[in-house]
Amino acid sequence: MRTGIATVCLSGTLKEKMQACAIAGFDGIEIFEQDLVTSPLTPGEVRTMAADLGLTLDLYQPFRDFDSVPEDLLAANLRRAEAKFKLMARLGMDTILVCSNVATASIDSDDLRAEQLGRLAALAEDHGVKVAYEALAWGKYVSDYEHAHRLVEAVDHPNLGTCLDSFHILSRNWDTAPIEAFSPDRIFFVQVADAPKLSLDVLSWSRHYRVFPGEGQFELAKFMGHVVRAGYSGPVSLEIFNDVFRQSDVERTAVDGMRSLIWLEEQSAKWLDANAPVLAAAGAGTVAGFAGAGRRRYPMELATLPQVAEPAGYNFAEVRAADPKGLETVLGQLGFEFNGRHRTKDVQLWTMGHARVIVNEDAPVAAGSTADAAPALTAAIGALGFDVDSPVIAAARAQQLKAPAVPRKSQANEEVFQGFAAPDSTEIFLCQGSPDGTAAWTHEFGEGLDAPAAGEGAVIDHVNLAQPWQHFDEAVLFYTSALALEPQPFAEVPSPTGLVRSQVMATADRAVRLVLNLAPLIQREGDAQPEPSGTGARRTYQEHIAFAVPDLVATARACKARGLEFLQIPANYYEDLDARFGLDPAFLATLQELNLLYDRDADGEFLHFYTATVGSVFFEMVERRGAYDGYGAPNAPVRHAVQYDLMHRLNKTT
Amino acid sequence: MRTGIATVCLSGTLKEKMQACAIAGFDGIEIFEQDLVTSPLTPGEVRTMAADLGLTLDLYQPFRDFDSVPEDLLAANLRRAEAKFKLMARLGMDTILVCSNVATASIDSDDLRAEQLGRLAALAEDHGVKVAYEALAWGKYVSDYEHAHRLVEAVDHPNLGTCLDSFHILSRNWDTAPIEAFSPDRIFFVQVADAPKLSLDVLSWSRHYRVFPGEGQFELAKFMGHVVRAGYSGPVSLEIFNDVFRQSDVERTAVDGMRSLIWLEEQSAKWLDANAPVLAAAGAGTVAGFAGAGRRRYPMELATLPQVAEPAGYNFAEVRAADPKGLETVLGQLGFEFNGRHRTKDVQLWTMGHARVIVNEDAPVAAGSTADAAPALTAAIGALGFDVDSPVIAAARAQQLKAPAVPRKSQANEEVFQGFAAPDSTEIFLCQGSPDGTAAWTHEFGEGLDAPAAGEGAVIDHVNLAQPWQHFDEAVLFYTSALALEPQPFAEVPSPTGLVRSQVMATADRAVRLVLNLAPLIQREGDAQPEPSGTGARRTYQEHIAFAVPDLVATARACKARGLEFLQIPANYYEDLDARFGLDPAFLATLQELNLLYDRDADGEFLHFYTATVGSVFFEMVERRGAYDGYGAPNAPVRHAVQYDLMHRLNKTT
Repeated sequence: MRTGIATVCLSGTLKEKMQACAIAGFDGIEIFEQDLVTSPLTPGEVRTMAADLGLTLDLYQPFRDFDSVPEDLLAANLRRAEAKFKLMARLGMDTILVCSNVATASIDSDDLRAEQLGRLAALAEDHGVKVAYEALAWGKYVSDYEHAHRLVEAVDHPNLGTCLDSFHILSRNWDTAPIEAFSPDRIFFVQVADAPKLSLDVLSWSRHYRVFPGEGQFELAKFMGHVVRAGYSGPVSLEIFNDVFRQSDVERTAVDGMRSLIWLEEQSAKWLDANAPVLAAAGAGTVAGFAGAGRRRYPMELATLPQVAEPAGYNFAEVRAADPKGLETVLGQLGFEFNGRHRTKDVQLWTMGHARVIVNEDAPVAAGSTADAAPALTAAIGALGFDVDSPVIAAARAQQLKAPAVPRKSQANEEVFQGFAAPDSTEIFLCQGSPDGTAAWTHEFGEGLDAPAAGEGAVIDHVNLAQPWQHFDEAVLFYTSALALEPQPFAEVPSPTGLVRSQVMATADRAVRLVLNLAPLIQREGDAQPEPSGTGARRTYQEHIAFAVPDLVATARACKARGLEFLQIPANYYEDLDARFGLDPAFLATLQELNLLYDRDADGEFLHFYTATVGSVFFEMVERRGAYDGYGAPNAPVRHAVQYDLMHRLNKTT
Repeated sequence: MRTGIATVCLSGTLKEKMQACAIAGFDGIEIFEQDLVTSPLTPGEVRTMAADLGLTLDLYQPFRDFDSVPEDLLAANLRRAEAKFKLMARLGMDTILVCSNVATASIDSDDLRAEQLGRLAALAEDHGVKVAYEALAWGKYVSDYEHAHRLVEAVDHPNLGTCLDSFHILSRNWDTAPIEAFSPDRIFFVQVADAPKLSLDVLSWSRHYRVFPGEGQFELAKFMGHVVRAGYSGPVSLEIFNDVFRQSDVERTAVDGMRSLIWLEEQSAKWLDANAPVLAAAGAGTVAGFAGAGRRRYPMELATLPQVAEPAGYNFAEVRAADPKGLETVLGQLGFEFNGRHRTKDVQLWTMGHARVIVNEDAPVAAGSTADAAPALTAAIGALGFDVDSPVIAAARAQQLKAPAVPRKSQANEEVFQGFAAPDSTEIFLCQGSPDGTAAWTHEFGEGLDAPAAGEGAVIDHVNLAQPWQHFDEAVLFYTSALALEPQPFAEVPSPTGLVRSQVMATADRAVRLVLNLAPLIQREGDAQPEPSGTGARRTYQEHIAFAVPDLVATARACKARGLEFLQIPANYYEDLDARFGLDPAFLATLQELNLLYDRDADGEFLHFYTATVGSVFFEMVERRGAYDGYGAPNAPVRHAVQYDLMHRLNKTT
């Protein structure tokens, strides 16, 4: 699959954008006109730079408001088009995107449109240019891709084809199957964009909220499957108007985009494999001459990735703390047992049942961030280990998906973890899980326990990572594509500093639950904390590790006996809980006595408590009763408010 | 008018919110349940604190999903309601908001609803509670305020009334005139919220995008006029769900909200005055027994503000620069003449025609910001002077609208400017304009010109201020209410660091044009600039003063002869300009030679150029031909790109 991206997706100057696209590995780019108009580079310099960078210049765009106009305006439009055709010659480009008219169309006649597009095609032929006509979803008279294609058919000129943009098609819920009947000679270009399902008007939706494939909710693999079956083999190019991407680091965004195309390529191949038999039975012989038996027979070659199953569980979570005393205290009070220090590294292992926490005594500076970008913290979540079938295959997949590798130094006879950095800079390690739930690497820790650790039945239930706002969509795609986690519907939780967007990524069996929290954009004015920026920024927000136990009340009593500092829940909460659920008074009294939170839904019940915060890390203990699948979202505002109050009192006294 | 605000509008804890509401001067508050549930304060403590702060507790809210349910669920709902009624007794509150059912309604019968609401009213009576029933715009069966009112009428119980929320009514475009026919005894509460017109689904719109009255596009004065004519005299309370307000400084947001109610009160009175005769003629005797002759005869008293006309023009603009050399050079090259130094202050006066620029040699630290919050800059726009009919009356109005005063120190015989601080900390001064366009205070500058300044016909055309994102809506209301400027439709301009939202505030005659630019949220990662936060934050973005002259080509030639450093416009721009407009080749050559930008629309033509930037300030020269009313928006991306490129090259070499 030939990959492309429109320069409008990225921040910076045309030169910066082109360099970033080359670094990310795109085959070609679309030149968004405004990027050229505002650039000091001459067309010749752009052409040379693209050649030097190994980028083809695939599409000049957009040319707006051409068709359905009176003759005098058409003459002006043809003059305008000819100026662009001449410019394209200097750029060495041969394809231009012409959008259906939005602003100046005044005559609704397909005959007239065909005649006008025909004159444009003839002019384009004179200049060796191909015109890719596209139906904008909000085009005045032409808003349906099949309508645009009918016009192209009617003109029947070799220099006129159509451009298929997934946003304009899927935002309107058009059926994509008819694409298969298009002649590949008529499809001049394919643009792909994903988007979250929004009820917004389609223009605003398109201009601000497009995301890279895999970051939204469109059925893009199906769209691409039909495109491939039509016989198209040209560039598949990203055209993403996104307010955040426009502000983000240009190279990171380009890599994010490239990852989305690599993932889409795989998903498209899978869709083709999965749907081939059905469509063959339904008479595939009619669709563009393809028998529909397997993707390898289509003109477009679709590369494959190493295949991985979803992870079987958390292998460990690592917390970094230059001074680990506070962490050691809390873990001990929670019931974790100290399994000793690593024989060559400054790390400790703590275990409760199958929940393993590594305390890394390196200062919590995130990988990839500069020392002064990351604020000094006493503790932060630094790494997560996941049990996978084959760490080598999973790591190979992640690397093909452009995940930056973070190999760990290791001595002879020590297990080498395959690792890479998540978008928020958390290190993700791929581990070999044992069927009995143990981990071989624990033997590298000396003076450990011989007897099985206490807390039988305890596991890591979920990990909650705070995400910097400019990498949130990237993180969703990253965990989807590299780690085979599935995004669940998101929630929004009120906190004293704003709404917190909470996105759960999970395996189907819920053995892995990872919660990505998008915290409010900045701390409130007057607060001491630095604002989030750069790779290490999420460290300023609190995040946590949650452990599941079979009997939370017993666990809480034991923790209390060991002196654990619970997050104190206001009495008002229990009064409201009673009003909502009508709980047994003795049970309610127990909840209140132990600062336990409670939730209930049709599937089951959820009990949980939080510890006080160490650095930017705190812990949660949960008990899931029945098939409860949530995270106590109704209780999250209480947690946020109490933590905020504590932090503020702390700030005011220091 | 009794003023109120719901605690959900504000950031922070319940205690912080209540304190901020008292400081801002609200009469009462609505307790949003979640704020109480998450608070460590007991109900008794909340009651005492409110009394100490002089705040009444006007409404407990929300009570959700009560009506249209089967009997077993109703019993649970009544039990839940009773728990809240008992809680309210401890809070000393007597009114609760009950919203129409969204989630659990399953029986669509008005008879059943009336019966169920009747049972709720009877229970409420037992506890001395009044139930204000509100139709949510997205209620399952009850979404129309008239429907809710019909149910209240049907129940006919003194403890059941309705709550009117302007958002739920105006978001659905319901006619508000029928409110006048409601008995005031049936209206238990009135909530006001404004909103920008969006095509979003009404629930998302409501939960994220409400703004304070005057910051959106709803016809709130008309809504309030009908409410007043119905005879309602209870609290008028803000209920604003806004993602930004939830994150902003609690006291500033509270003051912003209070300003919106003061403004709404005035606008409502004006609407009543303006509409009384028409409605009287249409038979006002039928509307709730009022004759409709004037607002003073309604139970709700509406206070008035000092009245001001829109400003007649800019009196001056002030730029601060600790080292003014760079500014002096640019102003001289632009054609400004040095009019001397002030006799007691470290300020210089520069004049061209009627455009006056004060160069203040104080370091550009914004009023109200701490020294370390504002980055050190070599130059920044510090103050704007506006010509008004009566500075004293205008200042009194601004102060009643809670604008923070910034009196200037002055010696005997010097003109005392009335001034206040805008939300972005720019100082706004109210000046007495002379009919001949001169200003009396210029005589305080010694060794000045006796002859009239050069550049006849030059005026300040517009000023462009960069706004911090968390005070953008506040700024719109501020300039609307305090300075009588009208918001125009906004534009969004692409820049290399993101979309820039551009909001023009102007007088009807365009003598004053003020452009508020909301820059992208943060600088791109890796950039050296600090991120915007706090009062002085906008100073990190470039802003400018534009002067209009009668002949821009001649002015540009003269500036060039004086050695002015123009912002260099890429050749690609002129090629595109020619493609779009087909300009006369000689004219196009002149534009390109002088780095002039050009725009044209149905109203006229616009020529302009920009200077290089000094500190964070640059200047623009414009010529308006015909009735051109814009700002060359199609050219703004070019300006942003070239400035970005310059700044980046500068950053990379330093």
